[in-house]
Amino acid sequence: MDGYRRFVSKRTSLFRASEIRELLKLTEGRDVISLAGGLPDPRVFDPRLADIAKEIIEKERDHALQYSPTAGVTEFRQTLKDFADSKGIKVTADDEVVVTAGSQEALFLAARVLIDPGDKVIVEEPTYLAAVNVFREHGATFEAIPIDSEGMQTDVLEERLRRMSKDEKKPKLIYLVPTSQNPSGSTMSQERRKHLIELAEEYDLLIIEDDPYSFFTFEPIQVDYLKTLDKSGRVLYMSTFSKILSPGLRVGWVLGPRDLVSYLELSKQTIDLHTSTLSQYIIMEAIKKGIVDATIERARALYKIKRDSMMDALEEYMMDLADWTRPVGGFFTMVYVNGEIDMKALMYEAIEKYGVAYVPGESFFPVSKKKNTMRLNFSYPSPDQIVEGVRRVALLVREKLGK
Amino acid sequence: MDGYRRFVSKRTSLFRASEIRELLKLTEGRDVISLAGGLPDPRVFDPRLADIAKEIIEKERDHALQYSPTAGVTEFRQTLKDFADSKGIKVTADDEVVVTAGSQEALFLAARVLIDPGDKVIVEEPTYLAAVNVFREHGATFEAIPIDSEGMQTDVLEERLRRMSKDEKKPKLIYLVPTSQNPSGSTMSQERRKHLIELAEEYDLLIIEDDPYSFFTFEPIQVDYLKTLDKSGRVLYMSTFSKILSPGLRVGWVLGPRDLVSYLELSKQTIDLHTSTLSQYIIMEAIKKGIVDATIERARALYKIKRDSMMDALEEYMMDLADWTRPVGGFFTMVYVNGEIDMKALMYEAIEKYGVAYVPGESFFPVSKKKNTMRLNFSYPSPDQIVEGVRRVALLVREKLGK
Repeated sequence: MDGYRRFVSKRTSLFRASEIRELLKLTEGRDVISLAGGLPDPRVFDPRLADIAKEIIEKERDHALQYSPTAGVTEFRQTLKDFADSKGIKVTADDEVVVTAGSQEALFLAARVLIDPGDKVIVEEPTYLAAVNVFREHGATFEAIPIDSEGMQTDVLEERLRRMSKDEKKPKLIYLVPTSQNPSGSTMSQERRKHLIELAEEYDLLIIEDDPYSFFTFEPIQVDYLKTLDKSGRVLYMSTFSKILSPGLRVGWVLGPRDLVSYLELSKQTIDLHTSTLSQYIIMEAIKKGIVDATIERARALYKIKRDSMMDALEEYMMDLADWTRPVGGFFTMVYVNGEIDMKALMYEAIEKYGVAYVPGESFFPVSKKKNTMRLNFSYPSPDQIVEGVRRVALLVREKLGK
Repeated sequence: MDGYRRFVSKRTSLFRASEIRELLKLTEGRDVISLAGGLPDPRVFDPRLADIAKEIIEKERDHALQYSPTAGVTEFRQTLKDFADSKGIKVTADDEVVVTAGSQEALFLAARVLIDPGDKVIVEEPTYLAAVNVFREHGATFEAIPIDSEGMQTDVLEERLRRMSKDEKKPKLIYLVPTSQNPSGSTMSQERRKHLIELAEEYDLLIIEDDPYSFFTFEPIQVDYLKTLDKSGRVLYMSTFSKILSPGLRVGWVLGPRDLVSYLELSKQTIDLHTSTLSQYIIMEAIKKGIVDATIERARALYKIKRDSMMDALEEYMMDLADWTRPVGGFFTMVYVNGEIDMKALMYEAIEKYGVAYVPGESFFPVSKKKNTMRLNFSYPSPDQIVEGVRRVALLVREKLGK
């Protein structure tokens, strides 16, 4: 792309071509089992969406195919508030919704509205890679708080906040995926959630609660949403229909204090004017007809089986080689290999020689860059592929560790 | 929104809430004729899209509802190249397409990739307001070149470029809507197009050819696309399906040199990951089945009648009050009132007392801020509303000028 270097902006130096994406292109059209992706299993997609799309265009053509408000179709925004409410997410009279092009755009809008170059963002470690990239592109630096099976370690957070409060540049934002975390699958305990909210109050912080997965946990969880625990408008809640209906419709949403969310709306106006009107109408109808809830139940059942296949395979093949998280929801488990190993450096060999792909975990640790880690996906491959994929990964790791 | 001021980024000060949008809210649910909007007439929307949507989800569910590549569905990108080719837009082996969320996102991506704060962008005057806002948000300043019935006055451009070439900060980008311009409706002559391309070569400039309207001109035009005249990869061509199929699907596209377009793709990755997959599949099918071409013919016929209604009404009521452009395509005419008048200041009165709304022209002139202008839309209102709307505008203007 060098021919145009004299024309492009300085910020393009912050754009990252994903090396992983490039490596994964090697898997195309070959007999490689991919545990690398993050796609939903298409079997959860509801065939009734075909009729809904047809009916919506027939009945609402003048509106469903027309421009719509930047914040989202008015009726759909109300539907989303009701949907949130039905799931136990607190919606106050001061709250408003902005409909976005997937949660990626929700993250982009939040970063654009909140981050100045040099701002410090507190994240979990490991954390969601795409969020890190968005914040980094806006000039953020990171303060990483480790997570364990109960989510972000808020005692570490508290200590870190106390130390940072003496700095000139205080953090103003905590980003986390508190339920069925990506990449680890862990869920934050109720106690820590309360502690987090207290700390946000004490240190005057905003919280982004990124929540793509809470609707289909494999076991019941007894925790409140951060949005629900929030008392003073500090939580920006975001979710998406990518995992509970269809990613191809490209619809996410942000719920939060109207005064804050208005900035996101304003920013969206120059980015893409509005989200696909047709997608919004289709989802509105799918919610009304119970299709979203039916999809959630299908997702829960199907992904639970696959999660179990992956846990079984890991026990079978990697017991002596690694530790891993036991996800209560979501699409992924995080594997920590016992020993000195660089899973990123091994990726080419994994694909070429062992016929398996994973995502090296390093990039999910924006500060500590743990090289001995990988993220494995269980939502897309079949149970057989999961077992065989894990077996191949184990062979690779075993050979490299000389065990 | 002041409660969150301590949290928001400095760049939010560049976000503009549109005063016009606020004023136009006054028209809601009232007997006001709006010549202010920019909506397509829903009668051009093709009812067959209902069946297409259903069939696509039935046949291609696993793909049409799934995540898709950031640059766009691979097959759809080829369809777009063929579509471009069929319309006389030159596509070279070095060219690539990025599918965007409407042309708004195409503009945003271009600004993000090309504009550093302080960069000078050359625009037509008047020019497309939303483009000005995007560039301004990225810190651009403007050099405005006047247009007449033959488009941008390239002799003025040449003189200006010569003068600017002595400055330290040379412009690197020209933005224009060369065919059926928004807001004026004028179309650049072939001679000036060639001159523009020569100047771009001489002064090493990129050109953004924004082209939402060229497919349905009311009279045949004998000009080449700038993209077609380009010899050295300087033209970034952008268009949209908003005016020739449906804005609600939210699909635009950029065609240009692969090396340049790759930056836009990279930027899109963190903004919204990809454009609605379902929308892309629907449009792909609509192109194949001739529905886009049928819509284009419907648009041409319908908007020509409305353009004529507006021209007739302007002649009938405003002959002695103003000059205006005679659009060969597009949705708008630009009216220049003869005399000292501030159309923006009169907007409230227009709505409240005269029951008519328009868009004050001032913002379309980023440098000269001409206050005696307004943009009138003829695509959405009915011919009767157009005539009555123009009559009301004329009454207001006549009263204010004391004629």
